[in-house]
Amino acid sequence: MIQGISNEAFILGCSAIGAGLALMAGIGPGIGQGYAAGKAAEAVGRQPEAQGDIIKTMILGQAVAESTGIYGLVVGIILLFVRPLLGAL
Amino acid sequence: MIQGISNEAFILGCSAIGAGLALMAGIGPGIGQGYAAGKAAEAVGRQPEAQGDIIKTMILGQAVAESTGIYGLVVGIILLFVRPLLGAL
Amino acid sequence: MIQGISNEAFILGCSAIGAGLALMAGIGPGIGQGYAAGKAAEAVGRQPEAQGDIIKTMILGQAVAESTGIYGLVVGIILLFVRPLLGAL
Amino acid sequence: MIQGISNEAFILGCSAIGAGLALMAGIGPGIGQGYAAGKAAEAVGRQPEAQGDIIKTMILGQAVAESTGIYGLVVGIILLFVRPLLGAL
Amino acid sequence: MIQGISNEAFILGCSAIGAGLALMAGIGPGIGQGYAAGKAAEAVGRQPEAQGDIIKTMILGQAVAESTGIYGLVVGIILLFVRPLLGAL
Amino acid sequence: MIQGISNEAFILGCSAIGAGLALMAGIGPGIGQGYAAGKAAEAVGRQPEAQGDIIKTMILGQAVAESTGIYGLVVGIILLFVRPLLGAL
Amino acid sequence: MIQGISNEAFILGCSAIGAGLALMAGIGPGIGQGYAAGKAAEAVGRQPEAQGDIIKTMILGQAVAESTGIYGLVVGIILLFVRPLLGAL
Amino acid sequence: MIQGISNEAFILGCSAIGAGLALMAGIGPGIGQGYAAGKAAEAVGRQPEAQGDIIKTMILGQAVAESTGIYGLVVGIILLFVRPLLGAL
Amino acid sequence: MIQGISNEAFILGCSAIGAGLALMAGIGPGIGQGYAAGKAAEAVGRQPEAQGDIIKTMILGQAVAESTGIYGLVVGIILLFVRPLLGAL
Amino acid sequence: MIQGISNEAFILGCSAIGAGLALMAGIGPGIGQGYAAGKAAEAVGRQPEAQGDIIKTMILGQAVAESTGIYGLVVGIILLFVRPLLGAL
Amino acid sequence: MIQGISNEAFILGCSAIGAGLALMAGIGPGIGQGYAAGKAAEAVGRQPEAQGDIIKTMILGQAVAESTGIYGLVVGIILLFVRPLLGAL
Amino acid sequence: MIQGISNEAFILGCSAIGAGLALMAGIGPGIGQGYAAGKAAEAVGRQPEAQGDIIKTMILGQAVAESTGIYGLVVGIILLFVRPLLGAL
Amino acid sequence: MIQGISNEAFILGCSAIGAGLALMAGIGPGIGQGYAAGKAAEAVGRQPEAQGDIIKTMILGQAVAESTGIYGLVVGIILLFVRPLLGAL
Amino acid sequence: MIQGISNEAFILGCSAIGAGLALMAGIGPGIGQGYAAGKAAEAVGRQPEAQGDIIKTMILGQAVAESTGIYGLVVGIILLFVRPLLGAL
Repeated sequence: MIQGISNEAFILGCSAIGAGLALMAGIGPGIGQGYAAGKAAEAVGRQPEAQGDIIKTMILGQAVAESTGIYGLVVGIILLFVRPLLGAL
Repeated sequence: MIQGISNEAFILGCSAIGAGLALMAGIGPGIGQGYAAGKAAEAVGRQPEAQGDIIKTMILGQAVAESTGIYGLVVGIILLFVRPLLGAL
Repeated sequence: MIQGISNEAFILGCSAIGAGLALMAGIGPGIGQGYAAGKAAEAVGRQPEAQGDIIKTMILGQAVAESTGIYGLVVGIILLFVRPLLGAL
Repeated sequence: MIQGISNEAFILGCSAIGAGLALMAGIGPGIGQGYAAGKAAEAVGRQPEAQGDIIKTMILGQAVAESTGIYGLVVGIILLFVRPLLGAL
Repeated sequence: MIQGISNEAFILGCSAIGAGLALMAGIGPGIGQGYAAGKAAEAVGRQPEAQGDIIKTMILGQAVAESTGIYGLVVGIILLFVRPLLGAL
Repeated sequence: MIQGISNEAFILGCSAIGAGLALMAGIGPGIGQGYAAGKAAEAVGRQPEAQGDIIKTMILGQAVAESTGIYGLVVGIILLFVRPLLGAL
Repeated sequence: MIQGISNEAFILGCSAIGAGLALMAGIGPGIGQGYAAGKAAEAVGRQPEAQGDIIKTMILGQAVAESTGIYGLVVGIILLFVRPLLGAL
Repeated sequence: MIQGISNEAFILGCSAIGAGLALMAGIGPGIGQGYAAGKAAEAVGRQPEAQGDIIKTMILGQAVAESTGIYGLVVGIILLFVRPLLGAL
Repeated sequence: MIQGISNEAFILGCSAIGAGLALMAGIGPGIGQGYAAGKAAEAVGRQPEAQGDIIKTMILGQAVAESTGIYGLVVGIILLFVRPLLGAL
Repeated sequence: MIQGISNEAFILGCSAIGAGLALMAGIGPGIGQGYAAGKAAEAVGRQPEAQGDIIKTMILGQAVAESTGIYGLVVGIILLFVRPLLGAL
Repeated sequence: MIQGISNEAFILGCSAIGAGLALMAGIGPGIGQGYAAGKAAEAVGRQPEAQGDIIKTMILGQAVAESTGIYGLVVGIILLFVRPLLGAL
Repeated sequence: MIQGISNEAFILGCSAIGAGLALMAGIGPGIGQGYAAGKAAEAVGRQPEAQGDIIKTMILGQAVAESTGIYGLVVGIILLFVRPLLGAL
Repeated sequence: MIQGISNEAFILGCSAIGAGLALMAGIGPGIGQGYAAGKAAEAVGRQPEAQGDIIKTMILGQAVAESTGIYGLVVGIILLFVRPLLGAL
Repeated sequence: MIQGISNEAFILGCSAIGAGLALMAGIGPGIGQGYAAGKAAEAVGRQPEAQGDIIKTMILGQAVAESTGIYGLVVGIILLFVRPLLGAL
């Protein structure tokens, strides 16, 4: 008998682990955006006069790549804050 | 006997972990879109005058690559919000 | 004795985890489509006048690559919505 | 004693997880087809006049690569719909 | 005591998970066939007049690569349909 | 006490999972044969007049690579059909 | 019976593991930013006079790549500090 | 108490899983032999007149690479057939 | 009944494992920074007169890449020192 | 109480799984030897007159690479045959 | 009932495993620093007269890459020595 | 109560699994030695007159790479033969 | 009730597994240092007269890369020898 | 109640698994040293007259790479021989 654990505690415990898994989605954008940054720095090194255009392209592309990391954060925050409040309703 | 855990708590706990797994799908688009951003920045560095076309192509391609990340988010949100409400019906 | 968990709760809990696994199929299309987007952006940078053809090819190829991600979404949705309703029959 | 879980519930729960695993087969075609799309877009960029032939080749090759993803979907659907009905016989 | 689960239910549950594992074999052919499709599209782009020969080679090679995916499907189907019927004998 | 599960059911359940693992050996030949198909298609594109020789070489090499996938299938089939019959002796 | 563990202890224990998982998201940015640093150092070696531009591009790109690592940190901190306080409300 | 499972059933169950693991060794030869087949097909495409020598070399090399896959099969077969008979002595 | 373990011991035990996971984030920066060091050493070998600039760029880039490793350390330290003290309040 | 399982059955069950793990060492030689076969076939294609020397080198190198696969087989066989006999002493 | 294990033993046991995980962070710096060493040795081979500068750059870069490995060591030592003493307070 | 399993059986069971893990170290030398064999075969193809020197170098290098595989074998044998005898003292 | 296991035995058992994990950190330096050795051997082959400098650079770089492997050894030794003695105080 | 297992048996069992994990560190040196051997063989093929220098460099570098594999062996031996004797004091 695991007597001492309430429903709420079980949900919060699972949510903590679920949030950790969701945040691990950040591995992907981290690698991808770093690749973009490296390629952009290389390109700037070759064509310094095109720096503005290269940075604009890089930032634009990284912004899209950021999205799935943000999804993970959003779901992590929901798991930690919104759901407990919802459960309190 | 795990006495204290209700049906709802069990479902919500599993949903939290399932949502975390679903969000990990974002690793793929994150790597892929970052690759696209890097290649586009490189291409702009070579042909600055084609910047508009390159960015359009990159954004278009990234938008499609985004899709599976969004699927993960959608299922994560369903797991966290829609199902509990459905269960309340 | 895990007394408090009904049949339905057990199925819904497993379905949540199964849906999470199914959605992780999106890692594949995410990487692949991003690769396609990067190659297309690179190609446009080399041949800006062929942009229309390149984008058409990329979109066509990405659409096919999207399919297995959609399969994952379909099965995830079935696990979350259709089966519970079916179970209610 | 896990008293409350019937035979049917146990099978349905395992089927949900099995379906999730089967759908993860989509990671392979997703990466492969995306690679094909990228190579095709690159090829079109080099030889725009051969676009028709390139796309035909790509689609043909992707269609075959799609197969194992479809197998996963088929088995997932069987696990979710056909078997429960069969079990009802 | 896991009282409520019959022999048949235990076998069917394990079969569902085993089928999911077997279908994951499709990751390999998916990546391999996609690689073949990409290389073929690239080759057609270089030598459009050899398109027929290239496609024939690609299809032939992919057909062989398909085999292990089909093995997985066959064993998955056996696990889901043939064995339960056999068990009914 | 897991009362309801007979010896036979336990063996069949483990066999189902073992068969799934054995079939996953198909990931290797799938990737390898696809690589061979891609290289062959590329070679045909360069030397269309050597198509017969290239295909013969590819098929021969793939046939050997197929072997370990077939081993997996053989053991999977043994696990599913031969052993239960043997057990019935 | 796991008598001695209170609700709070269970949540804090799961939070510690969840925080550890969330922080592992830092693997991605670590690899990516290092790649960017390497490419930038290489570019500076080729065009020392463009050093300012290259570094600016690198830092900008790395700053974006940093984001998912920070998300992991934020969720880790929330799991360790904010939630316990919230639970104390 | 897991009353119903005899010694023999426990051994046969573990053997089934062990055989599945042993067969997974086939992933290695599958990838390696496919690589050899691809390289050989490429070489034949370049030097069609050396086809006999290339194929001989490829087959010889693949035959050695096959060995570890056969080891896996041998041990799998031993686990499934020889040991149960041995146990019957 | 796991009688002898207090709440505090359970939290400290989980914290130790969580801290270990958090520190594993250092795999990423370790690979990335080493890549940067290698590229910088290569660049210095080509342009010894630009050594100052290359090292500055490398150090700057590595410092950013270091961040996620430090996050892991911070959370590890919090898990080991701050939380126990907090729990003592 | 797992009453029905004797010491011998427990050891034989663990040995079966251990043998499966030991045989998985064959993944390494399988990949490595296949790489050697591919490189040798490529080399023969370039220098058909050196075929004898190339094959001798390849076979020699593969024979050494084979060793760890044989170690795995040896330990697997020991686990399956020698130890049970030893236990019977 | 796991009667014999005290709080302290449970914490020390988990700490041992946590320390092992933390030390595994050394995989990253090990690969990265080795890459740097290889690149530096290559650079020295090309420009022996720049050896001093190359080694200085390599050592500087490796020193930074070392950091996350040291973090792992620090946390490992804390887990093994500091915490037990702290617990003794 | 797992009554039937003696101390010796528990140790032998764990030793079997530990030996399997130790033997998996052979994956590394297998890949590495195969790489060496491939590179040597390639080198012989380019410089057939240097065959003796190349083979000597390859064998020497492979012999060192073999060492960790032998360590695994040694520990596996110790686990299977020496320890049980030692335990019998 | 796991009656027979004392506190000390539990700690020593966990320490053994923790030490095994800590030693696995040696995978990183092993790969990295081998890469350095290969690059150095290649460089010596190109510039035999710079052998002294290349070896000095390689050894220096490898010595740093060795560090995290030593950390793992240190913690492993602490886990096996120092802690038990400390526990005896 | 796991009555029959003494303290010593539990420690020896865990030590066996820990030793297996520690020996798996040999995967790293195996891959790395093999890479070094391949590069050295390649270099000898290009500069046969520098064979002595190349082999010296390779052996020196491999000797350092060997270290972490030896650490694993040392800890494995300690786990299997030294600790049991120590426990007997």
